[in-house]
Amino acid sequence: MNIAQQLGYQEQTKLLIIHADDAGLSHSHNRATITCLEAGLVNSYSIMVPCPWYYEMAVFAKNNPHFDYGIHLTLTCEWKNYRFGPVAPLSEVPSLVDEHGHFFKTREALRANAKPEHVVKELDAQVQKALRFGLQPTHLDVHMYSVGADEIFFNSYKALGAKYKLPLMINKQLITMTGLNPETTISPKDLLTKNILIGNFELFKTGKLSDYYANTAEELVPGLNVLLIHPAYNDDEMRGITVDHPNFGAEWRQIDLDFFSNPQHKALFHQKDIQLVTWKQIGHIHS
Amino acid sequence: MNIAQQLGYQEQTKLLIIHADDAGLSHSHNRATITCLEAGLVNSYSIMVPCPWYYEMAVFAKNNPHFDYGIHLTLTCEWKNYRFGPVAPLSEVPSLVDEHGHFFKTREALRANAKPEHVVKELDAQVQKALRFGLQPTHLDVHMYSVGADEIFFNSYKALGAKYKLPLMINKQLITMTGLNPETTISPKDLLTKNILIGNFELFKTGKLSDYYANTAEELVPGLNVLLIHPAYNDDEMRGITVDHPNFGAEWRQIDLDFFSNPQHKALFHQKDIQLVTWKQIGHIHS
Repeated sequence: MNIAQQLGYQEQTKLLIIHADDAGLSHSHNRATITCLEAGLVNSYSIMVPCPWYYEMAVFAKNNPHFDYGIHLTLTCEWKNYRFGPVAPLSEVPSLVDEHGHFFKTREALRANAKPEHVVKELDAQVQKALRFGLQPTHLDVHMYSVGADEIFFNSYKALGAKYKLPLMINKQLITMTGLNPETTISPKDLLTKNILIGNFELFKTGKLSDYYANTAEELVPGLNVLLIHPAYNDDEMRGITVDHPNFGAEWRQIDLDFFSNPQHKALFHQKDIQLVTWKQIGHIHS
Repeated sequence: MNIAQQLGYQEQTKLLIIHADDAGLSHSHNRATITCLEAGLVNSYSIMVPCPWYYEMAVFAKNNPHFDYGIHLTLTCEWKNYRFGPVAPLSEVPSLVDEHGHFFKTREALRANAKPEHVVKELDAQVQKALRFGLQPTHLDVHMYSVGADEIFFNSYKALGAKYKLPLMINKQLITMTGLNPETTISPKDLLTKNILIGNFELFKTGKLSDYYANTAEELVPGLNVLLIHPAYNDDEMRGITVDHPNFGAEWRQIDLDFFSNPQHKALFHQKDIQLVTWKQIGHIHS
């Protein structure tokens, strides 16, 4: 039986998770994520534990267990002026940070510097911090898919999923994007996200991001599809965070918020052969 | 010779520092602080090293050494959803934090929990982090005057000033407010801030904060006066930080910003017997 059948649907059903990344990054992100969840379009999200506004989002998650949420494992901080670093003590994960104690900005810098044992320690520290707070995450995904920086890091990610019995975001496109070989990285027993849908900078620059979202339903395939969005307000806080970084910048995030907080857009995904599912449901069949 | 005379002024001169607290707390605070500095009214500020937006402000401070700045030593975090903790590893200063690793919200909770050796370690870690980044602070002051929670903490503050040869904010009113005895806390060789001027909640609630600032000049005394303000924008970020905390809330901070970014208000302090001075000047005569 494939995943759809295990969940009780027809074999060829298109399963879809509309997923908001980066909760906890900023107050702007938290407000926007909650708005999208309450509008009923986003049906899962994940929280960045090392970020300044993690606590606000963690309180929300704990108080709203009906909304599906995971941990957005974080090993990079791509921003110029808004800098954060590990949950684990710096002295225990020194290879993960620059001279100021902040995460590196890119997967490449992470690859060049990070020791695998420090990656293991930090990823575990993030999950442990969330669990200690009383969170019950449904999945583990990864900011900037940074675990793809090295196959050893990717294997740590898999080990983390096994340790906490949580589904992971394992996807061939993303693995290929990071430069890893999907043939050696993916094993037959891995639960695969068949199709990742995410906007790109060209769509943003040419003003076609909303059109892309409106047409997402046509891009879905039988099996598990995950549409990744990054809703936030284009406000002073987000402009400060994303300064000099138009890719996934504040304007982009406002477009995501506008589209996925509009209840009229629900109809786009409510089609006969599409089933909106959560990571929690998938975790139940997976474990 | 008194301080005024040591700085080359008449004995009865009223020395004034218009000082912006809380830089680094938020992007909103950083923007507002810079606006006030550039307007020419605020002539000193101090930076909170443990806060999420510290780095942005530290970069500004390093690039703008003509503006006088100190370290706003921080042992408390009074906010509900925006929580931060020590610069030192949690394992080395466990008595300074709550169960989530965040600073306590009040001086009272700090007094009840903090071990003096952890206070010493954390205060030093904050100064060291700033120095390592290349900052050249002109003074050390204290968020919520938390070193007044205990006379032993206050003595650590004095020792820190001596160690780094930096002037401190030692003031009888503030010491009394914290519950310490100024007679035993202040020694004859301490450099005293004679008069602290700061708005209060009653003035804010009754809409008289701006009037208070407009009349500050009349409240000055011969010797060192420090007017403490907290400029920030009343934006979503600051409203998120100060939620359920109207005292020194986002509205209050916008009033401070509006008043001290208005160049017309400079004239209020440019009077014959008032001299605007910086902590740097005071540090030079003090050391």
